[in-house]
Amino acid sequence: VNSKLPQAGTTIFTVMSALANEVGAINLSQGFPDYDTSPELIELVNQAMKSGFNQYAPMAGYMPLREELSRKTEKLYGAYYNPDTEITITAGGTQALYTAIATVINPNDEVIIFEPAFDCYAPAIKVAGGIVKALELEPPDYRIRWDMVKRLVNSRTKMIILNSPHNPTATILHQEDIDALTAIVKNRDIFILSDEVYEHLIYDGEAHHSMAQYPELRERSFVIASFGKPFHATGWKVGYCMAPAVLMSEFRKIHQFLVFAVNAPMQAGIAEYLKNESHYLELPGFFQQKRDYFRKGLESTRFELLPCAGSYFQSVKYERITDEKDADFAMRLVKDFGVAVIPVSAFYGRGTDHHVLRFCFAKRQETLDNAVERLIKV
Amino acid sequence: VNSKLPQAGTTIFTVMSALANEVGAINLSQGFPDYDTSPELIELVNQAMKSGFNQYAPMAGYMPLREELSRKTEKLYGAYYNPDTEITITAGGTQALYTAIATVINPNDEVIIFEPAFDCYAPAIKVAGGIVKALELEPPDYRIRWDMVKRLVNSRTKMIILNSPHNPTATILHQEDIDALTAIVKNRDIFILSDEVYEHLIYDGEAHHSMAQYPELRERSFVIASFGKPFHATGWKVGYCMAPAVLMSEFRKIHQFLVFAVNAPMQAGIAEYLKNESHYLELPGFFQQKRDYFRKGLESTRFELLPCAGSYFQSVKYERITDEKDADFAMRLVKDFGVAVIPVSAFYGRGTDHHVLRFCFAKRQETLDNAVERLIKV
Ligand SMILES: CSCCC(=O)C(=O)O
Ligand SMILES: CSCCC(=O)C(=O)O
Repeated sequence: VNSKLPQAGTTIFTVMSALANEVGAINLSQGFPDYDTSPELIELVNQAMKSGFNQYAPMAGYMPLREELSRKTEKLYGAYYNPDTEITITAGGTQALYTAIATVINPNDEVIIFEPAFDCYAPAIKVAGGIVKALELEPPDYRIRWDMVKRLVNSRTKMIILNSPHNPTATILHQEDIDALTAIVKNRDIFILSDEVYEHLIYDGEAHHSMAQYPELRERSFVIASFGKPFHATGWKVGYCMAPAVLMSEFRKIHQFLVFAVNAPMQAGIAEYLKNESHYLELPGFFQQKRDYFRKGLESTRFELLPCAGSYFQSVKYERITDEKDADFAMRLVKDFGVAVIPVSAFYGRGTDHHVLRFCFAKRQETLDNAVERLIKV
Repeated sequence: VNSKLPQAGTTIFTVMSALANEVGAINLSQGFPDYDTSPELIELVNQAMKSGFNQYAPMAGYMPLREELSRKTEKLYGAYYNPDTEITITAGGTQALYTAIATVINPNDEVIIFEPAFDCYAPAIKVAGGIVKALELEPPDYRIRWDMVKRLVNSRTKMIILNSPHNPTATILHQEDIDALTAIVKNRDIFILSDEVYEHLIYDGEAHHSMAQYPELRERSFVIASFGKPFHATGWKVGYCMAPAVLMSEFRKIHQFLVFAVNAPMQAGIAEYLKNESHYLELPGFFQQKRDYFRKGLESTRFELLPCAGSYFQSVKYERITDEKDADFAMRLVKDFGVAVIPVSAFYGRGTDHHVLRFCFAKRQETLDNAVERLIKV
């Protein structure tokens, strides 16, 4: 085979989770909770199966789920998406991201991404024949230098990929970012792919800036989110994409032949669960408590906390401990200290190493306690 | 957007099912059963959820499920696939097909398909930049003319897509097809994509010829199947791909960034269900009874039965009734006679019309009775 992704290995998430299992380490690497999804939600899916939701869902998704999403988006962001023509349910956030990229990227189109970046963006661009233009962000604040973005943009620029709250850096976009982005894309044929899977995991009373909210951005945006992270069910793989009808109709042409439809009983169960809005309104508080608890714990260690405005990740610097590469140090942490983490260099295409590690704090208090106890010894 | 699939509309399956619902017709169009999946299987999924299988499954799939598939394939076809390196679970058969095509097809590669063909092959090829070389098969026997295939093959031929049992024609490959195919691909760099989602729906004691069985074919084949059709749960969207490790490693590079992983509790439930081999060994008998029943019913109508060796579709000619186009006649059938069917011209890229309609007989006896009662009036 003439490999389309000659460089691609197994993702760092899979590698680290496997290693954590192998050595019996506390796994704060891959992003998933160690507590379970709600029994109420499980029972809703069970009821959906029992009442016969076991055959093909509609290609674009189970309509009551699309309707709930439309309502939620209007309520939270004041933005209306027509469930019939502007919302499609996908087999998780990753499938939505891949499909949006496959929909608009042609050979030699350039796509601007910000690194550290979630690991599926670049390969999806490459498979479509596109060219990744990565702008590297730096700790501690990982601010997007919009003047640099402006310099990267040219007539071949087809898309900009954003992710707020951001994995792995836990930063969020602010109004000044929105303004700068708007100025750049205005009067240009540039699409925006907005990965908002952590939309509900945002802290300290800050507002999520969704691309849905800003007409000049929304008209060119694929807004993507999923239910795995907010509803503690990362293994269910149900996500969605919202976009203006003219974009969505092209997205669906790919989606229809890529996966055709998405698990029916899961969609029906989630649709019912979404009706109770406290199920998502309570999320910032739930996760902020974990963030605060974990940060407090880490204060007793020699790791240096970076800011965490959203997502369920906490990054740290470790210069006071060692000057090892983050990938090497991460190996040592899992093997010698029994805590699995993600080296943030893995999120840079060129492996840029700022000596930063990422912890997932979507864990039980007891797990966080045990991890901190081990990390104190480092 | 610069559409990659300018011609693509909503699939005929979606259109016809929607129309059937709208006019209250008996829906024998889209391929799905009107009886439910087994309560035992539903309960196994429920138990998987309740016992905490709600976070990410491994990228390549839940290992016990891969192991069951390996065992089943060895038992049925005498072919061993290593569950670690040669089997990957996908979000349905369609995702597996799309991913295999995306893995090997580069711009201007030619892919041979046989029409009538399932509707996702050609678009997936086109999105990858490949060129569809369609060979049209003709009723009543829809035999593959291997001499014609041989003439189509050239240095740009990258893949041949096979589908046995075949949708929509209900034909199956025989040993002479296997031999002819083997002679053609020998000493050539041609991959085979083998859509075997109807492997268990095969009648009259005939054997399924899987690409897995023939070493010279297997070494170049992506063998694809799914659980939706055999287990009466088309809405669950769990399928798989089996291929030699060297092909599978490339398949997984795409899969990993296209969907990452597949619904965990569904995989766990299906793995458990597969342990009882009667759950798939009983399928030919179960479906043959429906085929025979429906065929007998149709004998009282003016439709002319075409052979049905496998799949859950029965095709008919209707020259004794009308010389209308099949698409027009299908519209009239659903609207005036209350039976939704699929016009087989929809499976030909050029819309070739042999005046053939496809019925899905995966329906309750009562549904088949009611449909026949209406069809007698035609
Ligand atoms: C797709 S697996 C990884 C889950 C995740 O989002 C992360 O750990 O960053
Ligand atoms: C993918 S929807 C159609 C189901 C099916 O296989 C068919 O009707 O041919």
